[in-house]
Amino acid sequence: MANIVTPRTLSGFMELAPKDQMVFEKIKQTLETTYRSFGFYPIDTPILESSEVLLAKGGGETEKQIYRFQKGDTDLSMRFDLTVPLAKYVAKNYSELTFPFKRYQIGKVYRGERAQKGRFREFYQADIDIIGDESISIMNDAEVPSIMYKVFTSLGLVDFTIRLNNRKVLGGIFELMGFSNDATDIMRVIDKLDKIGEENVKKELADIGVSAESADMLLSLLSFTGSNEEIIAKLKEYEGKSEKLDLGISELSDVVYYMEKFGVAKEAFKIDLTIARGLDYYTGTVYETTFNRHPEIGSICSGGRYDDLAGYYTNKKLPGVGMSIGLTRLFYILCEKEYLNKNISAPVDVLVIPMTEDFTKAVEISNVLRDAKINTQIYFEKKKFKHKIGYADKLSIPYVIFLGEDEIAENKVKVKDMVTGEQSLISLEEAVSLIEKGKLNNANDKCIILD
Amino acid sequence: MANIVTPRTLSGFMELAPKDQMVFEKIKQTLETTYRSFGFYPIDTPILESSEVLLAKGGGETEKQIYRFQKGDTDLSMRFDLTVPLAKYVAKNYSELTFPFKRYQIGKVYRGERAQKGRFREFYQADIDIIGDESISIMNDAEVPSIMYKVFTSLGLVDFTIRLNNRKVLGGIFELMGFSNDATDIMRVIDKLDKIGEENVKKELADIGVSAESADMLLSLLSFTGSNEEIIAKLKEYEGKSEKLDLGISELSDVVYYMEKFGVAKEAFKIDLTIARGLDYYTGTVYETTFNRHPEIGSICSGGRYDDLAGYYTNKKLPGVGMSIGLTRLFYILCEKEYLNKNISAPVDVLVIPMTEDFTKAVEISNVLRDAKINTQIYFEKKKFKHKIGYADKLSIPYVIFLGEDEIAENKVKVKDMVTGEQSLISLEEAVSLIEKGKLNNANDKCIILD
Repeated sequence: MANIVTPRTLSGFMELAPKDQMVFEKIKQTLETTYRSFGFYPIDTPILESSEVLLAKGGGETEKQIYRFQKGDTDLSMRFDLTVPLAKYVAKNYSELTFPFKRYQIGKVYRGERAQKGRFREFYQADIDIIGDESISIMNDAEVPSIMYKVFTSLGLVDFTIRLNNRKVLGGIFELMGFSNDATDIMRVIDKLDKIGEENVKKELADIGVSAESADMLLSLLSFTGSNEEIIAKLKEYEGKSEKLDLGISELSDVVYYMEKFGVAKEAFKIDLTIARGLDYYTGTVYETTFNRHPEIGSICSGGRYDDLAGYYTNKKLPGVGMSIGLTRLFYILCEKEYLNKNISAPVDVLVIPMTEDFTKAVEISNVLRDAKINTQIYFEKKKFKHKIGYADKLSIPYVIFLGEDEIAENKVKVKDMVTGEQSLISLEEAVSLIEKGKLNNANDKCIILD
Repeated sequence: MANIVTPRTLSGFMELAPKDQMVFEKIKQTLETTYRSFGFYPIDTPILESSEVLLAKGGGETEKQIYRFQKGDTDLSMRFDLTVPLAKYVAKNYSELTFPFKRYQIGKVYRGERAQKGRFREFYQADIDIIGDESISIMNDAEVPSIMYKVFTSLGLVDFTIRLNNRKVLGGIFELMGFSNDATDIMRVIDKLDKIGEENVKKELADIGVSAESADMLLSLLSFTGSNEEIIAKLKEYEGKSEKLDLGISELSDVVYYMEKFGVAKEAFKIDLTIARGLDYYTGTVYETTFNRHPEIGSICSGGRYDDLAGYYTNKKLPGVGMSIGLTRLFYILCEKEYLNKNISAPVDVLVIPMTEDFTKAVEISNVLRDAKINTQIYFEKKKFKHKIGYADKLSIPYVIFLGEDEIAENKVKVKDMVTGEQSLISLEEAVSLIEKGKLNNANDKCIILD
């Protein structure tokens, strides 16, 4: 026997057991189906890119986390998000694409972070973006979060809030106060409000030259609570004084109005003027999504509107709006907190257990079942009966068909409902109906169960 | 403006245009649906593994092609196939798995080969394997190629042949001839028959000590042509002389018999005694699949039966049988030869074009369409009419709904069939039926068109 190496998976890399993987796949499928239903194309960019291309913009904070290496004389990097590859893709294929270009990508990205519980080095992002050529309607800013709302509710996630803001609103307010040049700095400070509190924000604002009076006014506006309509009404008190602010208010109103038309429940989205998003490239609407039962995990889905997707690859002006779900991290929490619905993890609808040496009939009826879109496995192994039925049980397969000499002679099958324990000797056609009915009953089972 | 880096994708990395990607996704989905219908669990292993783990078996010929690098103090490698990660997964999760364990994995693997047309450094493999604990029925050897047959025919691929053999048959013949010790060497030579021809094979056989007489006998047996039944009958002439040969013949007969029961067309699978498969670990049934119109691309789907999946990770005996499709390479050829059905590349079923400033009604009817499982995009941009209809045209969207003041007032929609050009002013319910009917007509469209 050769030397044995202990099989292990690197820390920070998620590798799921089969039943969990089934749920993960169902989640991924729900995302894809929903994205598709709104007209997003899938794209699939390489995981490895030339470092020169991938880091064209500079890696920023994540640069030292990047998996970068040499192979032959090529300097390679593994992608660390799906936005840079999208920028590359759109710039590269500009002349072949039809704009607005709607794309989704669900793929693994890599960041060599310090390993810790709940932090991953290989993780899925699930992005949607709508890219325009020169311009893109504000309607897209309402559609994108509405799609994410539909994704989450389809999964069975409840008790989440999409929080939104518009950077033009913030920028306009700063302008009114005479700080237009320091807007980015102020936004960075404002973004920390949740983390460091009002007093520390005031101190930091003073450090960058904001008067105490202005800081008070700003913070009173940002801390104003009320319905989306009330917040917009409050903002409208400042209307007519700054073009930027007026535009921001108009955009924010449109987004709020149309999100409701798209079917987003009123309680699920909320204007939050304190959201600025750290990234410099957002220019309009910005989004964060809180899973209210676990605010500690941070935003589960974020994004926003940007004016310039790919300035480091092309002179074309490519504005867009997008959001991204941190899928692996979300899944990890759902798994940890036992919110996943393990009832949807059966690999097939029915297990056929032949009780004869010859498998001809078992194969034949399985063909019929599969043609009727019933996923079917035949148990082929020579094992004790207990073992065979235990197999269906362990895999949570909802139905078993026993096929012995008697059943074959009578041209029937014996079907056992593994949940109720009920057995019936029926024709194959009746078995198909029975199993189809069972499938239909479970067709609306959600991936996530939150009571 | 910052410095502009030319956006490019590394050579040997496939990155598809949106329409091609749609077809690729449909192919992937067909594979998944088919694999699932037979009870295979999806698994998803990391792309990065510890080099010690990934190379436990030794990388063999591919070792120098592996993308291997250091990050911090960790020696990492990118997976070069899906079999080693499967071995790791099964050994690592042995106690949690239920055997036989059926898994599929469709994922990217990495080999830093010298770049050349049609050769990829990042490519998809689409594997199925059935792993047993200690033993696994020969029925699985019949099921696995039958699944692949179903995959290919579902895709629309015709004119392919699954060629099969059994290494025990070959081994038994060698044994009869007294060469049991040199079996592996002989098999390696036999495997070259297609490439170097009969005369050169004879020379190489002589080099390893096979007498001219034995070589003649061997080659006459291997070159015997006839139906599967005729080949089995021919082999049976040697029955009773070698246990190994007898077992091989019995296995081969079972596989041939049951493949037909599984629905594989007689002309689509063929015993070919010359197939040995290069890999040392196959021990029984072996498969290769030829796309008969393009034999030059080699086997598009190969695999076989092995006794010992994971000997370098565990002392458990884990035999199995599996096959793998080289998906990227196959797709490349289909694309090059223009066999892909671009008609299935529309991102949505219908494009809604609002003719009013207000989008409320357009959003509302799109919600209704999506609830009826009709994928729907709204065209939101302010463009000329020609541009809007051109958008639907370029994206091959089959239906357009125009929604102007008049339609809204009448509570109707104007639907245009983009193929026939026909327009009708109808209710939304009628539009749903019309578009559903159109979808149904195209529901059986295949990904591949071969006349």
